[in-house]
Amino acid sequence: MRRSERIALISKTLSENPNKIISLNHFGQWLGAAKSSISEDLNIIKDAYKTSGQGELTTIPGAAGGVRYRTKRSADDINAFLKDLSSTLQDQKRIIPGGYLYMTDVMFSPEFSSIIGEIFAQLFIDKNPTHVLTVETKGIPIALMTAKALNVPMVVARRDSRVTEGPSVGISYVSGSGQKIHNMSLAKRALPENAQVLIIDDFMKAGGTARGMTELVAEFKAQVVGTAMVVATAVPEKKLVEDFTTLLILDSIDTHKGLIDISINNKLM
Amino acid sequence: MRRSERIALISKTLSENPNKIISLNHFGQWLGAAKSSISEDLNIIKDAYKTSGQGELTTIPGAAGGVRYRTKRSADDINAFLKDLSSTLQDQKRIIPGGYLYMTDVMFSPEFSSIIGEIFAQLFIDKNPTHVLTVETKGIPIALMTAKALNVPMVVARRDSRVTEGPSVGISYVSGSGQKIHNMSLAKRALPENAQVLIIDDFMKAGGTARGMTELVAEFKAQVVGTAMVVATAVPEKKLVEDFTTLLILDSIDTHKGLIDISINNKLM
Repeated sequence: MRRSERIALISKTLSENPNKIISLNHFGQWLGAAKSSISEDLNIIKDAYKTSGQGELTTIPGAAGGVRYRTKRSADDINAFLKDLSSTLQDQKRIIPGGYLYMTDVMFSPEFSSIIGEIFAQLFIDKNPTHVLTVETKGIPIALMTAKALNVPMVVARRDSRVTEGPSVGISYVSGSGQKIHNMSLAKRALPENAQVLIIDDFMKAGGTARGMTELVAEFKAQVVGTAMVVATAVPEKKLVEDFTTLLILDSIDTHKGLIDISINNKLM
Repeated sequence: MRRSERIALISKTLSENPNKIISLNHFGQWLGAAKSSISEDLNIIKDAYKTSGQGELTTIPGAAGGVRYRTKRSADDINAFLKDLSSTLQDQKRIIPGGYLYMTDVMFSPEFSSIIGEIFAQLFIDKNPTHVLTVETKGIPIALMTAKALNVPMVVARRDSRVTEGPSVGISYVSGSGQKIHNMSLAKRALPENAQVLIIDDFMKAGGTARGMTELVAEFKAQVVGTAMVVATAVPEKKLVEDFTTLLILDSIDTHKGLIDISINNKLM
């Protein structure tokens, strides 16, 4: 097999398996090439990715070593994506009677959710999360794509416990408006003790749901390493969770004039 | 830029954008190369993918033309994956009191769900689905990965209608056991008329939920082009939907002996 053919296959494999360490032996055996040739192939791919801002290849030495691909977008790239995302969300047809913003199609879109997941992964990869947690329903696609980019499992808290998932741990929490008590539960087998959990959601207003997830994680004797959402409202300024990362800030929805004001969180990077 | 570097970048872009037609001009401008060079690059990638069973590259002529990548697993590859999946699911620790099977971790795993999605896409791509539909919650990851592989939007029916999604169409349906009436709704703006819908779910027993989704699609004046799930039970043999594709068949769960009997659907291919 020619070098260029090997590179086509190695590049495909790496980009489809982000944050996974793949041994040089694996590529060597698969492609019938010496380790030294694979090593040269990887250097070419590494340079090509780096030059064009397509991500980072790292060589990990040792017995468990190999090569690992991670997305690495520049601040400019992330800003350009968020500008595109916010202008999509500011379309006045998205205003729902009652002053809500229709975001479901964006959250459920494979195209948007995969890039959002890659950005979340990039922001939190140094915290070494072992699990990504969300609560059903709308956050699932972005949580899944984040988990994929991090190469860790996703776990999903349910609004009601399910007989098909066995024993579960449940909590009650108060929504941000303080008017209503909700329940949230997670199968006991879903999360091991000392898991390092990244909490992901699509939207945050007062932070009641994020606070609930934080409390659920504590019940599992696991730790929260980060909390991130796509959109957080500017009001109330004080949220029920102290530390969170939002991509966008929803400043206001003027149902009368049909205006939605969303800005990029400039504290992000 | 050298040919091998261009190939690394083109291969990455194609594998990250399945079923999307990308023009040769796009690659040419991005990589600073003549169309004829890009064309040669693509032939090398095409051969490498084909030789190693890594998918199919097709050149589409004309003004809207370009190159398109699709996964194309061999029957042997799919069988090997399904064997692995069924042995994972047959672990006796998965039996939940009440005779249920714990599958959530598998459905929520980015690794399993992405391959399941690619297989569903491969099985139905010739029916030209324009949307992938599932009902919350467990089917969402496989539906999303199917939608990603098909390059179409995913839509999710809810168990209860949400104020944040605007006007919705709701139906009531009877579960397979005939004991209980459930509701399912979908935001009106989620699905256009004449959409060609692929219905995806994780599990089917009597087919009540799949039947419900079929009726919901009809309410939108859209058409169902296929119904697929990961696991269907052998009993009852007669389901509430006539035409469906399942990857695996759950023959029995013996809670007493701790035995789960799952087989690969040999009518699949």
